[in-house]
Amino acid sequence: MTIVPKGYEDLLERPLFAHLATIRPDGRPQVNPMWFAWDGEFIRFTNTTTRYKYRNVQANPEVSVSINDPDQPYRYVELRGTVERIDPDPTGAFFSELAERYGLELDGPPADAPDRIVYVIRPHSSSHQ
Amino acid sequence: MTIVPKGYEDLLERPLFAHLATIRPDGRPQVNPMWFAWDGEFIRFTNTTTRYKYRNVQANPEVSVSINDPDQPYRYVELRGTVERIDPDPTGAFFSELAERYGLELDGPPADAPDRIVYVIRPHSSSHQ
Repeated sequence: MTIVPKGYEDLLERPLFAHLATIRPDGRPQVNPMWFAWDGEFIRFTNTTTRYKYRNVQANPEVSVSINDPDQPYRYVELRGTVERIDPDPTGAFFSELAERYGLELDGPPADAPDRIVYVIRPHSSSHQ
Repeated sequence: MTIVPKGYEDLLERPLFAHLATIRPDGRPQVNPMWFAWDGEFIRFTNTTTRYKYRNVQANPEVSVSINDPDQPYRYVELRGTVERIDPDPTGAFFSELAERYGLELDGPPADAPDRIVYVIRPHSSSHQ
């Protein structure tokens, strides 16, 4: 059983850009486009411990993700969820996996690999159009 | 003087989809793609009083907007701002203006014109890449 609405699975399977909304410590929203991966249970993002977003999700693990179809931009899915874990990614393995998914050629692990982390998000509700 | 980073003005001038993040009454974020218009001072969205988003911005006027370039998806601007006013749009005039901006042909005002409103947002800070 998945929270993704029937007929919208492709928006999670394709290497599209997901607009990830988090809450800042001052209670205001923050949102920007991000790479992601979806395994049917979790949606995962790569980030580093030096970013504001890391501060945000540590203070408040509730997030929301908006993905629309570049070919039919009125067609979108929103997944609201909770950051269940923040996994370390010290070799940059998950970053490299995403880079490959998005067609970026790398010549080795990213320079910021020691700071790399993975947000592991379990969606709990969705909207779509 | 504008809050939009130099060289990113086109992302606000083109009829792109803006992912508008608001805060729900339970404190969790909500985000989805929307039409918008920008006049150099305010970013405006059309919505209706029957939508969850209306409830959200009435309770908490702090919002954030993420727009990326479909031609260079790593290029984006985020504008964080405050809903300064919610204007009524009982004839659907602003809705129709946006429909024209986005290339949608209408044969008259929208059926939900009596419920139509305009979020008038003043951006106070930005991020970009």
